Parts: sequence; C-alpha cells; structure tokens
Amino acid sequence: MNVSYEQMSGTFFGVLIKCGFSEADASSLAEIFTDNTFDGVFSHGIKRFPGFVQYVELGLVKPGAKPARLRKKGNFEQWDGRLGAGPLNALLAMDRAVRIAKRKGFSLVTLRNTNHWMRAATYGLYAASRGMLSVSFTNTKANMPPWGAKEPRIGNNPFVLAVPDGDRTIILDTAISQYSYGKLSNHLEERRDFPFPGGFDADGRLTVKPEAIAESGRMLPIGYWKGSGLSLLLDLFVSILSDGRTTREIEELGEGEREFGISQAFMCFKPDFFGAGDRRSNLIRATLEYVKGAALAEGFEAIHYPGERSARSRKEHFMKGVEIPDGLWRKIEAL
Amino acid sequence: MNVSYEQMSGTFFGVLIKCGFSEADASSLAEIFTDNTFDGVFSHGIKRFPGFVQYVELGLVKPGAKPARLRKKGNFEQWDGRLGAGPLNALLAMDRAVRIAKRKGFSLVTLRNTNHWMRAATYGLYAASRGMLSVSFTNTKANMPPWGAKEPRIGNNPFVLAVPDGDRTIILDTAISQYSYGKLSNHLEERRDFPFPGGFDADGRLTVKPEAIAESGRMLPIGYWKGSGLSLLLDLFVSILSDGRTTREIEELGEGEREFGISQAFMCFKPDFFGAGDRRSNLIRATLEYVKGAALAEGFEAIHYPGERSARSRKEHFMKGVEIPDGLWRKIEAL
Repeated sequence: MNVSYEQMSGTFFGVLIKCGFSEADASSLAEIFTDNTFDGVFSHGIKRFPGFVQYVELGLVKPGAKPARLRKKGNFEQWDGRLGAGPLNALLAMDRAVRIAKRKGFSLVTLRNTNHWMRAATYGLYAASRGMLSVSFTNTKANMPPWGAKEPRIGNNPFVLAVPDGDRTIILDTAISQYSYGKLSNHLEERRDFPFPGGFDADGRLTVKPEAIAESGRMLPIGYWKGSGLSLLLDLFVSILSDGRTTREIEELGEGEREFGISQAFMCFKPDFFGAGDRRSNLIRATLEYVKGAALAEGFEAIHYPGERSARSRKEHFMKGVEIPDGLWRKIEAL
Repeated sequence: MNVSYEQMSGTFFGVLIKCGFSEADASSLAEIFTDNTFDGVFSHGIKRFPGFVQYVELGLVKPGAKPARLRKKGNFEQWDGRLGAGPLNALLAMDRAVRIAKRKGFSLVTLRNTNHWMRAATYGLYAASRGMLSVSFTNTKANMPPWGAKEPRIGNNPFVLAVPDGDRTIILDTAISQYSYGKLSNHLEERRDFPFPGGFDADGRLTVKPEAIAESGRMLPIGYWKGSGLSLLLDLFVSILSDGRTTREIEELGEGEREFGISQAFMCFKPDFFGAGDRRSNLIRATLEYVKGAALAEGFEAIHYPGERSARSRKEHFMKGVEIPDGLWRKIEAL
C-alpha cells in the first residue's frame, strides 16, 4: 500500500510513545526511521523498526537514558551513551560536533556505550545540512571473518564521509563488508544473486549466492585483505578515542547474539573556516562534472556521485508516498 | 647483490647532494628511501629512486623549496609545499601534527602544492614512533576510472591509519585501487597474474591479467562502487581542507602526464589524552589476540595484522642486508 510521510511518521511516533519514549524523542526517532524509508533505505527504516522496538522491550535500548558528557578538552569531547536509543545518541553527538566546529574549525565527539545508529548516512546528512564536512564511524559486533579466517571476528564497521554543496550532499555511507546485512537480507528474500562475490561458501569459495553466505557467515570485506585491515583499524580508533568497547568486547557483552553497548566517533570540519567559500563550491562542481563526464563503461547509462540516487529517491517518495508491502505495514500498525 | 643499510643510504645521499639537496634534506630523504626498501616496499624505495631523481632534473620537484605555513587556527594548520620533495614536506606536516596533538589532544595539518610522498606508511610510522594515532591521506592524478566509466577520472588516493602499541604499529597503508601501481608493475615484470581481479580488460571484463589492465588503464577500486565513492570523497576532503588542487586540477597542471602539485592531510590523536593508557594497551593486545586466533580459512597458515609482515621484513633486512638485482644497483650507482 501507498503510505505518506505523515502517516508513517505518525504511526512510528505512536508505537514509540507506547515504548516509553518522551514526545520529543519519539518524534525525533519517528522522523529518522521515516526519512530512512523515504530515502529508499528500507533496511534501516521501516523494515528495521520492529527490531528496534524489540530491543527496547528486551531492555537493551533504554528509552529514558540521556547521554552524559564524560570529558571535554578543546574541540574533543567524549560522551557516554548510557545504552539509550542509538539514533538519538548519534544525533546529539553529531550536533555537538557541528557546534564545536563552527567555532574551532573542526571537532571530534565520541560516544561509548551506545547502540546501533540505524542508517549511517543520517548523521552525515545532518552535519551537511548545517554546512559541515563530516566523518563518522561505528564499530559493530563480530559479523565478518578477518582475512584468512573462516569465523567472524571483526565488524563490518560502517563509516560515512559527507561533503555539502549547496542543497546537495556528496555522501558515502558504506559498510566494510562488500554488501551490508540489509542488502544480504533483501537478496535472500528476493532469491537474487549478487552482481559480484559477496562472501565465501562453507567450503571457502567466493560466491555470489546470498544463501551460501548466510549459511557460512563468511561475508567478504571490500578489497579482500584491505577491508579486513580497515575494519580492525577503525575498531581500534573508535574504541580508543571513545574509551569504549571494541568489537571483541561487544561480542562478550552480547554473548555473540545481541549487539549493544557499541562505540562511535563523529568529526566535523568547517569548510570555509579559513574563508575560501567560492573556490570550494567551484571545485566541487567542477570535480563532479569531470567525474560524471567520463566515457561510460559497457552496460552503464550514467555515472553517479555517492548520495545522488538516494536524494532522487527521497524527492520521488515525498511527492508520491512510498509503496510498502501490505503485510509489513500491518505488522507496524500492530506493534 | 646484498646491500647493507649504510651502503644504500650512503649511495642515495650522494646522488641527492648532486641533485642540489642540502645535507640535512639529502640525509632525511636517503633514510626514507632506504627504510622503504628495507621494509620490503621496493616500489616506493629503491625502484622509485631513479624516477624521483628524474622529477628533480625536470624541475618538477624543487630541492631548495621550504614549505610555508599559510594559516593557523587552534589545532588546524594549512601549509604550502611549494613543490618541494614530497617526503620532506609530508614529514614536516606530520611532525607538526604530532606536536600540536601533544598539547591539544588531536590535530589537523594539511599540505597543498606538494609532491608524491612515496610510501604512505612512512608518516604513520613516524607518528606512531612518537606515540600518536594518525590518519593521513593524499590525492593523486586521475589513474582509475570511476565506477561505470572506462577512462581514469579519479585517483587511487592512498590513505593510512596507524595505531601504536609499544614497539609495534598496527598500520594500514592502502591505495584505493585493488592493487597499487607498484604491485601492477611487479606483476608485469614477473608475468604473474593477480590472485583476484585487479581491473578490467579493454572490453570491460574483470581480469586478473596485469597486461590487460596496463593496456586498458582500467584499475579496479576496492569494493567496486564503494572504493570509487571513497576516492571521490577523499579528493574533495583533502582539496577543501588544504585549499589545494583536486585530482582534476592535478591532471590539468601535469597535462595528464606528470603528477605534481598534489594535496595531502595529516591528523594525529593522542591516545592517552584523557588518561586511559593501561586499558588502551590491554584493549589492543586483546583485540589482536582475538582476531589472530580465529579459525583459519582454507589455504591460510596465519592471520596477520596490518603492518605485521613489513615489520618482520624490516627486522630480517636489517640483520642480513637486502638483496638487490645487480642491474638495478648499478643503475642507482650511475645516477
């Protein structure tokens, strides 16, 4: 069925109030889940919403918890997320990063003891809407084998780089696995192979079959050994800078089943801190024209900048509403 | 033939003095080229040295040039590399970043108008030897097609993440292409296929053949579209933060042939800024044990952390000297 923005966010809001969130928090969370859905990222929007509610019911995400600032020095702040809702904590941390960077040029705000932020791009888009370049990254439970191993001991640790340019944002939101778990579950549902190998089967052969990867649990890091190394380094960075849990400690805490109490980092950079606004805007425009103007490869119809397609999806969905499978919508309404 | 550290660095030093470098600069550069070679990275050590000398002779790398600080505010500095030797400029910038982070917890130092830094890991190892976590990245000329294109319009923009732990450094030094140009030329020389596809052939098919990739010029980004997006974002970040040239502008300047006048960024983080030294060291050790202790995949004998093998190579080469093909050594001596 076709669902409008108001209908969806209103329904989410009602469920979140029943979960024990304050009106302000419920409204903010409902907006994030609805935005993610309207941007076409169902896996971290409407499809994830029931799982989020379940985590609240299990007591793993705490509706009343307010993050607390632990330490502050110059343009570096460390916060404790107190196991509150991941998207609220992340939004607060990125907002701090934006405010500090406004005065100091750049900033680092870290979160320990927080929860899944859902769609990573949310916070990069938030900073971009306030004129800031940003970098954000998170660790996760162990959901990917390191290079050379067959059991998961590193996270797929999503990270985001975002650059605002007028009313558009060039934004890379990527897990370190070749395909996110959201993509994996979509392909499983639709019984559709990946276009490129996304992991190993139980015998250690690269495969495009989502079923084989789900069975083996052997997701492939981007760039093979390179992504494996990147995941390890991001885990060390984020846990050291936040004084928070590593992937190994998240596994211990959740007993390998649940993921909570994770670590995140948010950095902002003020692009015109030294005052080069015009040159910067020209430079972005010229770069995008140059990259998008390259001769097309066989079978391609266009070259997209990162974030271009989800922005288009958002615009279309806002105009026409978004098509939600009846069963899923009934499930949401019944929460 | 077998060459000792002193023999190699002494020979480099002599050539660099003839090129017009001061004694201090020649000594520092000779050490960097020798270290890279002893770490097993010939492509950015002894094999690259003749090319570096050629760039000096062409006037593209300027021996006398001293970098100048353009702007400074808080823990953020922008420098102009004045087309001096890339490794000297990068070392100076990373040294600034280390010094600032010591007082302020973290720092950002950018370089515009600089030259190729040779081995990216050099600067991460330098910061690590002074106890700092670091991130550094550079742009390059357009040497890789963006996803969906068949002509190079993005750089393979190497980046480095480094975490010190006592006398070892966990360090990822990676180009965004699946294989670096150094690796490509090694495989071409040895007529050896890549273990995984490293690019496209002229007809747009993924291939493990180095010859086919050299012919087409179509290097593959890590993670396909993901690496392509990452390259674009790093180019925008580094050029905005340094007020320096983008990949497109580097292409224009060098007329697509030469690479000079590039942009770089260096960040340091003081790990015990808020005083959690012991916990940090335990956390790194426990993480490495956990990751390296995973059940091995088929055909693997060990799981390595990033930087483990080059550190071992360094130790061996220091003890035994390093084996250099006679022809290459004669070429160096004749410079």
